[in-house]
Amino acid sequence: MQSFSALAADFASYFDRKHFPKEPQTLYAPNDYFLSLGGKRIRPILCLMGNELFTDIHPSAWEVATAIEMFHNFTLIHDDIMDKAPLRRGLPTVHEKFGQNTALLAGDVMLIKAYECLSKVPSSILLPIFSLFNKIATEVCEGQQLDMDFEQRTNVVLDDYLLMIEKKTSVLLAASLVMGAIVGGSGERNQQLLYQFGRKLGLAFQVQDDYLDAFGDPQKFGKQVGGDILADKKTFLLIHALETADKADVAILQSWLGKQGDNKVNDVLSVYRKCGIDHWALSLKNKFLDEALADLDQIAVVSARKKPLIELAEYLIKRDV
Amino acid sequence: MQSFSALAADFASYFDRKHFPKEPQTLYAPNDYFLSLGGKRIRPILCLMGNELFTDIHPSAWEVATAIEMFHNFTLIHDDIMDKAPLRRGLPTVHEKFGQNTALLAGDVMLIKAYECLSKVPSSILLPIFSLFNKIATEVCEGQQLDMDFEQRTNVVLDDYLLMIEKKTSVLLAASLVMGAIVGGSGERNQQLLYQFGRKLGLAFQVQDDYLDAFGDPQKFGKQVGGDILADKKTFLLIHALETADKADVAILQSWLGKQGDNKVNDVLSVYRKCGIDHWALSLKNKFLDEALADLDQIAVVSARKKPLIELAEYLIKRDV
Repeated sequence: MQSFSALAADFASYFDRKHFPKEPQTLYAPNDYFLSLGGKRIRPILCLMGNELFTDIHPSAWEVATAIEMFHNFTLIHDDIMDKAPLRRGLPTVHEKFGQNTALLAGDVMLIKAYECLSKVPSSILLPIFSLFNKIATEVCEGQQLDMDFEQRTNVVLDDYLLMIEKKTSVLLAASLVMGAIVGGSGERNQQLLYQFGRKLGLAFQVQDDYLDAFGDPQKFGKQVGGDILADKKTFLLIHALETADKADVAILQSWLGKQGDNKVNDVLSVYRKCGIDHWALSLKNKFLDEALADLDQIAVVSARKKPLIELAEYLIKRDV
Repeated sequence: MQSFSALAADFASYFDRKHFPKEPQTLYAPNDYFLSLGGKRIRPILCLMGNELFTDIHPSAWEVATAIEMFHNFTLIHDDIMDKAPLRRGLPTVHEKFGQNTALLAGDVMLIKAYECLSKVPSSILLPIFSLFNKIATEVCEGQQLDMDFEQRTNVVLDDYLLMIEKKTSVLLAASLVMGAIVGGSGERNQQLLYQFGRKLGLAFQVQDDYLDAFGDPQKFGKQVGGDILADKKTFLLIHALETADKADVAILQSWLGKQGDNKVNDVLSVYRKCGIDHWALSLKNKFLDEALADLDQIAVVSARKKPLIELAEYLIKRDV
């Protein structure tokens, strides 16, 4: 069994090649460009780890991993159009650099490429992988739509937000593990447990991300603290605060929504602290992490095979921050 | 063997149902709306005809036909965004009615739905159908990109245009027939011939479309005659005229490109007629039609099975207009 970082290095060198034809260059240069921007490649590595949880990595796992990474990049290209994002990893997004129409089409062709990679899987396992891929691909689109809807809505409750995050982020992480597990010959019960492990890890990660944006150490976090507050983003923290704070504090939070001002971040953080949102978020994150690890624990393989996934979970999700 | 119109009626009633879940309604109402706009459903019917060329229609052919129609609708939703088209079949396009972001995502989810329909095909024939689908889906995107590129280019030659039309239109018609043929148990040689039949029929149809836009009877054609000329569209006619007309006539054509004026259509049509572009287009169309029928003729099945396809070809492509 290999660690995440060992597999990351292997995947990086496997993936580092031309994936698209030369012509029409106006269509494929944008795709090559976008893949060259890099990324953490977490999802394909989860696929390889899902395979290795059960048996040595089968050559097909690399194809599935590539399909997953292509799919993820398709979502990024199209999300960037929808978000009108000028930059991705510090460089111009595809629509900024090549125009919106080409970005739209480059995303389309990236999605079809994902399916092309998938079609290289042996017939014996093609159908379950193909079906799962279609299911979560649909859910990721639904998650993106819900996310856009929430920007317009004022009545988003915690269950809505959980569903959105689950679809937009968690299901792809979960399915990446499971598609690898299918290649590795896993039975259905183990696949279900692994899916839940990935899903809850994704939720824990999102709670942590929301928490760090408000309470993180800016030095360690590497982002502007309070960015979500300034952008009026409906995070775990804001939604829970609006649901649990007393009338006066809810009024403070609502008075800042859609407005800017020097005290905005401090005012909102004071309410969050007063209502114990910080402790609530930490315990929610740990609850998801514990549940994820409990699901992993139940998977019927020798413990040694689970070690890299436990290490990864504890590396991604810190208990005390 | 059933005629195109009999199969059209069957497919219309098969396809007339809810294909998408209810929620999120913000995502799926646009898809339901777009499918409700209707369409000729030529491609799925070609798929059924491709099956029936070899044997009775297998239940899977309906799934593949649905996948093809979903794919075609995906391309229309995204093409409408790229073309900034306000109307489709006389009603607002998806981006006009629901906003561009939702149209983008509705197209994405329509493409994934196409693959979901495909995944219902029996394992024994899934791989060849899946692979062909991926190949032509990619080519359709390439064709759309070439079409957009040509709008910016002044040096488009006939071979460029043929390649663009082939990718953007013909390969999906050809592959629709062949996917049906695969369901029907056709051998490879017959598949290749049927693919060429569909491809050349597509080319003949496009030549006819370009011809009718310039020389058609407005009463019969149902569109404004000269629309392509007014829009400076690089059609078979314009490209061939620019390649073959004498210097003075080329100058007339070029003087009108990018400009509008009362005499534009008449001036361009005079040049076309003077250079015999009308006769050239008719004979090019008939050449493609003859080649298509010759390919069909070579397919190793009893002639009676070919009758509906011959009738369809001669219905779609009129020899004398």
